[in-house]
Amino acid sequence: MTLPHPATDQITLSNVLAALGDPTRLAIVGYLARREGRPTMCLKFTDFGSKTNISYHLAKLRESGITRTEVSGTSRLITLRRDDLDTRFPGLLDSIIASAVDLPMVKKIEEAAEAASVQGEPQ
Amino acid sequence: MTLPHPATDQITLSNVLAALGDPTRLAIVGYLARREGRPTMCLKFTDFGSKTNISYHLAKLRESGITRTEVSGTSRLITLRRDDLDTRFPGLLDSIIASAVDLPMVKKIEEAAEAASVQGEPQ
Repeated sequence: MTLPHPATDQITLSNVLAALGDPTRLAIVGYLARREGRPTMCLKFTDFGSKTNISYHLAKLRESGITRTEVSGTSRLITLRRDDLDTRFPGLLDSIIASAVDLPMVKKIEEAAEAASVQGEPQ
Repeated sequence: MTLPHPATDQITLSNVLAALGDPTRLAIVGYLARREGRPTMCLKFTDFGSKTNISYHLAKLRESGITRTEVSGTSRLITLRRDDLDTRFPGLLDSIIASAVDLPMVKKIEEAAEAASVQGEPQ
């Protein structure tokens, strides 16, 4: 199963900014940016809110062209569409990430991931 | 009369992005950027929509910290808070403006302004 994603030239600035104009979605993007392109399981984001809530936010990010979601068995792997966004809006994502990586919510989830890692859970 | 504006350190990234995640408000910002800091009368934006509509959009931009509105008699003068935004989110406004100045709506209003200028109307 594949989910619908806009083509690169269909990504619009107002859709991207509207999708990022939300603290939870900004935090998700900040966290993905910290992982430097490694696909991230959607379950990682449940520290940011309920599963339903996170599903909604991940759909918004995918539909606006900010992230790519790959269905892998019962899980979903999320990556930032960094190259596509850099092509469409040079410098935009970098400037947003520079501010988003230090959001309190991003630090919170990172601490949770580190704690899980110490306990031997898979990343 | 002065209208409320957030202080520089009260401007949040998610509020700024949410305010810019709208084609009309992006076009207003693109147009203000083309005027390079010159205060712009709110009436200039009526090509983008009805007066009520534009008032709403200008309030959103002011409340999120993107623009400053000065009341001057019966008119309002709008400027971009470029320095404040550059301080808070380096590079963000530049990257957004680089894409916003070429929006079809911005070109339309600029052509209207040029036509008015040819007819001797005040800028």
